[in-house]
Amino acid sequence: MNDYEVKVAKVKGEFVWHSHADTDELFLVVDGTLTIQLPDGDVTLSPGQLFVVPRGVEHCPVAAEEASILLIEPAGVVNTGQAGGDLTATHDTTLLDD
Amino acid sequence: MNDYEVKVAKVKGEFVWHSHADTDELFLVVDGTLTIQLPDGDVTLSPGQLFVVPRGVEHCPVAAEEASILLIEPAGVVNTGQAGGDLTATHDTTLLDD
Repeated sequence: MNDYEVKVAKVKGEFVWHSHADTDELFLVVDGTLTIQLPDGDVTLSPGQLFVVPRGVEHCPVAAEEASILLIEPAGVVNTGQAGGDLTATHDTTLLDD
Repeated sequence: MNDYEVKVAKVKGEFVWHSHADTDELFLVVDGTLTIQLPDGDVTLSPGQLFVVPRGVEHCPVAAEEASILLIEPAGVVNTGQAGGDLTATHDTTLLDD
């Protein structure tokens, strides 16, 4: 959408703590439950609920059971932010562009 | 999110045909069913499904029964696009800003 990407992900387990210095990041749960761990506490989302992590704020998503989520953020944002590591996704524009 | 707004709406009935010259518009259904009428045909969305209407494309959302939807678009976009009319919403930044 415009210069944003809508990413669909199935997640289970704990991601890595990371942040995005230059952009907010929108999480929306489609199926299951997602908890977003934040410095000030946890936010738990059920289907249809969303949360926007402000730019620069450390966060670590975790799902006890498999959950389907949408992420919306500007094109090119790296999923692990500044943290890097094994969970960093390669970017497939064929799949991700609108 | 950044300079975008996430709008929550309960809709029932038919909206007006309109377009947005300068922006794409993302519709996501949270509850119920939404049909987006487009020049090339209809797109019907169930909960968790989304569709992005490209900029400049005429569209007319319709819901036979009340549906809960999310719209994501840049801040300040007028809901009725170029069409105007009685369904044009006033913009309440207190409610709509993240």
